[in-house]
Amino acid sequence: MPETLISVDLSKPAEDQDAPLHNRWHPDIPAQVSVKPGDVFRLECKDWTDGQISDDDSANDIRDVRLERVHVLTGPVAVEGAEPGDLLKVDLLDVGPLQRDEWGFTGVFARENGGGFLTEHFPDALKAVWRFEGAYARSRHVPGVRFPGIIHPGLIGCAPSHDLLGTWNKREQALIDTDPGRVPALAQAPNPELAALGSLTGADFDRVAREGARTVPPREHGGNCDIKNLSRGSTVYLPVYVDGANLSIGDLHFSQGDGEITFCGAIEMAGYVDMSVELIKGGVAKYGIVNPIFKPSPLEPHFDDYLAFQGISVDEHTGEQLYLDAHVAYRRACLNAIEYLSRFGFTREQVYIILGTAPVEGRISGIVDTPNACCTVFIPTSIFDGDVNPGVGGIPTIGSGQVALAG
Amino acid sequence: MPETLISVDLSKPAEDQDAPLHNRWHPDIPAQVSVKPGDVFRLECKDWTDGQISDDDSANDIRDVRLERVHVLTGPVAVEGAEPGDLLKVDLLDVGPLQRDEWGFTGVFARENGGGFLTEHFPDALKAVWRFEGAYARSRHVPGVRFPGIIHPGLIGCAPSHDLLGTWNKREQALIDTDPGRVPALAQAPNPELAALGSLTGADFDRVAREGARTVPPREHGGNCDIKNLSRGSTVYLPVYVDGANLSIGDLHFSQGDGEITFCGAIEMAGYVDMSVELIKGGVAKYGIVNPIFKPSPLEPHFDDYLAFQGISVDEHTGEQLYLDAHVAYRRACLNAIEYLSRFGFTREQVYIILGTAPVEGRISGIVDTPNACCTVFIPTSIFDGDVNPGVGGIPTIGSGQVALAG
Amino acid sequence: MPETLISVDLSKPAEDQDAPLHNRWHPDIPAQVSVKPGDVFRLECKDWTDGQISDDDSANDIRDVRLERVHVLTGPVAVEGAEPGDLLKVDLLDVGPLQRDEWGFTGVFARENGGGFLTEHFPDALKAVWRFEGAYARSRHVPGVRFPGIIHPGLIGCAPSHDLLGTWNKREQALIDTDPGRVPALAQAPNPELAALGSLTGADFDRVAREGARTVPPREHGGNCDIKNLSRGSTVYLPVYVDGANLSIGDLHFSQGDGEITFCGAIEMAGYVDMSVELIKGGVAKYGIVNPIFKPSPLEPHFDDYLAFQGISVDEHTGEQLYLDAHVAYRRACLNAIEYLSRFGFTREQVYIILGTAPVEGRISGIVDTPNACCTVFIPTSIFDGDVNPGVGGIPTIGSGQVALAG
Amino acid sequence: MPETLISVDLSKPAEDQDAPLHNRWHPDIPAQVSVKPGDVFRLECKDWTDGQISDDDSANDIRDVRLERVHVLTGPVAVEGAEPGDLLKVDLLDVGPLQRDEWGFTGVFARENGGGFLTEHFPDALKAVWRFEGAYARSRHVPGVRFPGIIHPGLIGCAPSHDLLGTWNKREQALIDTDPGRVPALAQAPNPELAALGSLTGADFDRVAREGARTVPPREHGGNCDIKNLSRGSTVYLPVYVDGANLSIGDLHFSQGDGEITFCGAIEMAGYVDMSVELIKGGVAKYGIVNPIFKPSPLEPHFDDYLAFQGISVDEHTGEQLYLDAHVAYRRACLNAIEYLSRFGFTREQVYIILGTAPVEGRISGIVDTPNACCTVFIPTSIFDGDVNPGVGGIPTIGSGQVALAG
Repeated sequence: MPETLISVDLSKPAEDQDAPLHNRWHPDIPAQVSVKPGDVFRLECKDWTDGQISDDDSANDIRDVRLERVHVLTGPVAVEGAEPGDLLKVDLLDVGPLQRDEWGFTGVFARENGGGFLTEHFPDALKAVWRFEGAYARSRHVPGVRFPGIIHPGLIGCAPSHDLLGTWNKREQALIDTDPGRVPALAQAPNPELAALGSLTGADFDRVAREGARTVPPREHGGNCDIKNLSRGSTVYLPVYVDGANLSIGDLHFSQGDGEITFCGAIEMAGYVDMSVELIKGGVAKYGIVNPIFKPSPLEPHFDDYLAFQGISVDEHTGEQLYLDAHVAYRRACLNAIEYLSRFGFTREQVYIILGTAPVEGRISGIVDTPNACCTVFIPTSIFDGDVNPGVGGIPTIGSGQVALAG
Repeated sequence: MPETLISVDLSKPAEDQDAPLHNRWHPDIPAQVSVKPGDVFRLECKDWTDGQISDDDSANDIRDVRLERVHVLTGPVAVEGAEPGDLLKVDLLDVGPLQRDEWGFTGVFARENGGGFLTEHFPDALKAVWRFEGAYARSRHVPGVRFPGIIHPGLIGCAPSHDLLGTWNKREQALIDTDPGRVPALAQAPNPELAALGSLTGADFDRVAREGARTVPPREHGGNCDIKNLSRGSTVYLPVYVDGANLSIGDLHFSQGDGEITFCGAIEMAGYVDMSVELIKGGVAKYGIVNPIFKPSPLEPHFDDYLAFQGISVDEHTGEQLYLDAHVAYRRACLNAIEYLSRFGFTREQVYIILGTAPVEGRISGIVDTPNACCTVFIPTSIFDGDVNPGVGGIPTIGSGQVALAG
Repeated sequence: MPETLISVDLSKPAEDQDAPLHNRWHPDIPAQVSVKPGDVFRLECKDWTDGQISDDDSANDIRDVRLERVHVLTGPVAVEGAEPGDLLKVDLLDVGPLQRDEWGFTGVFARENGGGFLTEHFPDALKAVWRFEGAYARSRHVPGVRFPGIIHPGLIGCAPSHDLLGTWNKREQALIDTDPGRVPALAQAPNPELAALGSLTGADFDRVAREGARTVPPREHGGNCDIKNLSRGSTVYLPVYVDGANLSIGDLHFSQGDGEITFCGAIEMAGYVDMSVELIKGGVAKYGIVNPIFKPSPLEPHFDDYLAFQGISVDEHTGEQLYLDAHVAYRRACLNAIEYLSRFGFTREQVYIILGTAPVEGRISGIVDTPNACCTVFIPTSIFDGDVNPGVGGIPTIGSGQVALAG
Repeated sequence: MPETLISVDLSKPAEDQDAPLHNRWHPDIPAQVSVKPGDVFRLECKDWTDGQISDDDSANDIRDVRLERVHVLTGPVAVEGAEPGDLLKVDLLDVGPLQRDEWGFTGVFARENGGGFLTEHFPDALKAVWRFEGAYARSRHVPGVRFPGIIHPGLIGCAPSHDLLGTWNKREQALIDTDPGRVPALAQAPNPELAALGSLTGADFDRVAREGARTVPPREHGGNCDIKNLSRGSTVYLPVYVDGANLSIGDLHFSQGDGEITFCGAIEMAGYVDMSVELIKGGVAKYGIVNPIFKPSPLEPHFDDYLAFQGISVDEHTGEQLYLDAHVAYRRACLNAIEYLSRFGFTREQVYIILGTAPVEGRISGIVDTPNACCTVFIPTSIFDGDVNPGVGGIPTIGSGQVALAG
């Protein structure tokens, strides 16, 4: 069994852990542990909200979540010999829930609090709690579905350099400035509120809290890419920007659909990651790397029977024709899936949660046939407790109940 | 062997076929043949350009292609008993090249002539010719790769109603009107030039030629969705808008990557489709269908080892931060792949062609982590005649030569 | 399209083909064509019986089949530069039915005529005729099942040397001599009756007809190994025993279950093979090769949902405990599957045919747990027109009708 | 997290556990716990030898193992409402190592102590110790390979009735009587030595110890079937013979090749199983069940690139032709693989261990082509730290070192 380098105490906040967690990106957050290339080790992670969400039947905690707190990350891990320009190869040997805490949650944020992909259609806070039955997840809030997890970290990356951090903050502020009052916000600027910065204290803490980039968006270093295929058994190659690489990881998901459309939308959990690291010296220039590259895992659960929905880039409200807009085309594909599956006894909120959590695939199928992009969402049929294919007979009722609401 | 209902003569243009082809969408284009639910039958198709492209080493034909001619489609096929509101289930039992004509081509249009997904990076006409070696394709213009085809029709759909046709023409014209002189054009309005309309003649021909929608975009009926997974063995459920359904099919691809980013970018070919049809009466309202739904095939070639590239929605030229723009994120992922693979002896043009033709998967991985969309392109490593994984040693030279250019 | 080096005329017997076929193994049968390493070419093949079986509803032709005639093979193909001790790499680029003759048959021989794996349970001649619907096969004699073919040659190999041929004839005669009158026979000795020997004539013909090994068993050179996974897209490495290798191929199957338990039991057909060849000089000694090795194809249809049956090595008639007898264990697994599936409206004869033809997998699961071997047969559930899983409700009737009988 | 119904203390023998283990099959061994249909629960298991094997570099413990002690099983678990003739559906929701004890071992028994599949070729005791690196296993005794586990219980089944137990004992004794002094023995008769019988004591213990069937062979109830595909996520349907079913489980394997040819040959470990149970009342008669049936898991690691070896039923020592002997054909296939892979720097003992432990597939490919059975062993190539395909260049050295020996 790999040595556990960092463990977490789920009863304590980020700051009070033996190896305090952090929730901002900054080169000056000190490494908590150090490893050598070739080492195999285990890290434990808290859920991304630092434990704000409860295993209950109300979405009030989702509605009231403090997003200044996310994502609480484990690390940084220093890698001996790593220098800027290297490529850090990380083998994700295993990812799983903590055996002492096998449950997870999915949330849809209220529109005022960040919303989700379909926030115009689902403006209120929603929640589903999942129980892990071995390799499978079930929710009392979404009866009628069960699926095995493609377990993965939503977030992994190396610390940015000061230069890269500056680029991020500048370009994101420019976007925010185009519509500062927008709800939901276009992006989040650095914000000292609820910042956790590992073992930093004093003036360093204050400075880094003011400068540190928020963890929500994926960026050049990877970060919160929410790629479900960075799953147990996969390999990712991360650009290194600072001496020691300073690798951080967190936001573990028991399962997630492509796009994570419900935003807090994977099955969020605390858990562990077994990993090993290697260095490819000078790999960034050698291979012309801008963003991380990765190899998906041979261990992913595989499905052969899918029902797939198409969407095109025509706005669902106005009928306006958009130009090769893959965002809208994928939204339409998801809405088509929601409409269809809601005929099988599921509420529309439940299907929204299913699309966010189950191992669905989101594809950019056509992106050149002007003016329409065509996106598709593939849903494995075996996750349902009944037959969801179209047919000439009656439609079976598979779903029941409802997700947890705020109120 | 299924009965061949419509065969094509590759030496003759669309109009001179025994069952003349058509290249516009209109409810008044008469059916060429009629089938009953349950029938199993074969249709043959010309390549989408009606034979404008030659098996040679110059891209002049791509540069000079007359796009008013595309896509030449086989049909319409009338289905007995089909009525508006039905769902037409089509089993694509097999798709393949004509044994008498086993070759295909890939083109990148010049920017003035429609361009492609990366037209700002590749503004000139390019071409690659492919030879089919059994289930595999190879190109003398892209040495170093070989892959099995996920053979599929790029285009399938039922004729629109007059109402639906009106909606299409109106919304697309509105888009065109926002920037009528744009190069490439935002969309194509109806155009009688080079229209082929099956057996229509005289005044009917002239009217339909003026009204008929162009075939390039995917729309509510499916049409040119260019979904590679509508492959041999798959099933598609199409909305019916007119009595008899009037199903048309064409634009056969030996292989295509998700997105078909090179635009004329699959391996385009003439070929045959074996299919059977069934009706789900009233299926559109029953299941709330807007766009077609489908089931991918258990017969697709499968790959286990992929190298995947991430992209985020930051413009590659200006560094501008865009808001959850999946189009740009996928473009960046593709550009990252091109940069990487060009280190292995391929020209950038060759990699562009590979991404358009090989069985690559384009995923919308994250679409909620404001402000960045994260898209990924998965490339199967076994298509290369050498190891394309990152490593500590030298980079092997796998590619050579160059695609066909115009001039 | 690969050049067709040998085509067949289905209306003519083996001897009257332009490139006469052969049905014995002997080093002195002359090559019909010659190829160079790297060549890509097509060969056509007749069905293994040389056209003795008809597309009708009687098994009389199966009952009366002349097995001295089998297997009629295409070739030999000489490979330039091949020498004894080389390893011949053969890429099976494609395998398919002749588009002019898309049907196949499955037979169970009568016990007196060779029988099959379960001949004690099914002693009489049976037949099913299959229609190819694109990539799928259906039989009017086995309604209720449909499956895609894992198309492959049942037989491929290089000509033996004189020495190797002598070894074969000697060891097989020794087995025959242990029970010469057994029905069915333990093995077939050389037999000039109905021998086809390519272009050989006169005294050479008579000598080779007396000496030539029968083609039924797989042997060191491969030969009639009936491995369904030597399918389109696979690669096989064959030992070379004579100058020029003299490669022969035939016995094409549209589909077959592991074990080909019905003996004439795949879906037998005429067809074509696209292939290319390469040489690994001295490969036999280099790699210590005794029997061929191969790489299965990434193009195989894949199934994810199987129902699997166990069998152990206890005789079903006597209850006798046998010692790690995998033959008996697999027979019991097959009998268990037949008993089970016959509850779903299929006759036992139909299930026997299904196990012989459908893409079922036969596994040696345990072979050391004395005294019982444990073998398993995995049956993909999607081949049935209904749900064959065990459940608490009634058993659905999926099958109907009956196979063709003799009489 | 499922409730743990039975946990084990690895420092104590079977008898001293809180819920004492058992290592014989007998209807009178009392249930330890009781569950209801629909319950989801966890059971922990010791390794099959009850802890006789150590994590060291000597095979002395394998040589000296007391096989009268195997397999120590967890249970029996009584299922409320289960009656003879029912079918017990068991969902194996997860299987894994104990997080407090992540290692395993593989042994080859000496010929005098049971031997293995290739005991004539490998007559001495051998051992390899495996370390689990997340989802993967590595052994310091077999450098050069790494593979993900298809984790499964080697043994699962319900208690036999008195009648069935009598049948077992009678038929196995009859086999033993044909050659009582054979080394290795043909079968094991009941033996009170080292019997563990759960909570039985006194006269009941003595009687059951005299009568209880040994656990080595798979039988009608399943038992030690060693089917690697009964893995995490699979479902097995077990015949019920006694009131309450009395389900037992054990012999957990981190990984195993088809056939488990090294006998103690999987990666043997202690671990846990998460499961749920359901009843199909009267299912045995309803479906004509003799042996268990099962559904393999969609969660199995999948491999696409295999190197496969053929074997035929000709004895490797004498050259004797055997009649459709699948046991010998599989042995030849394995020996062919050993010969081949030993060219890549592995010792023959190491390859023997690899074939026993890695996710290799053993297929009965042809079983009717008299007189030769053809069996095949498929080895995934990605498990090796180098390229094991045949080629024209030099053979790379991938392996090194040697397994642990006795002495």
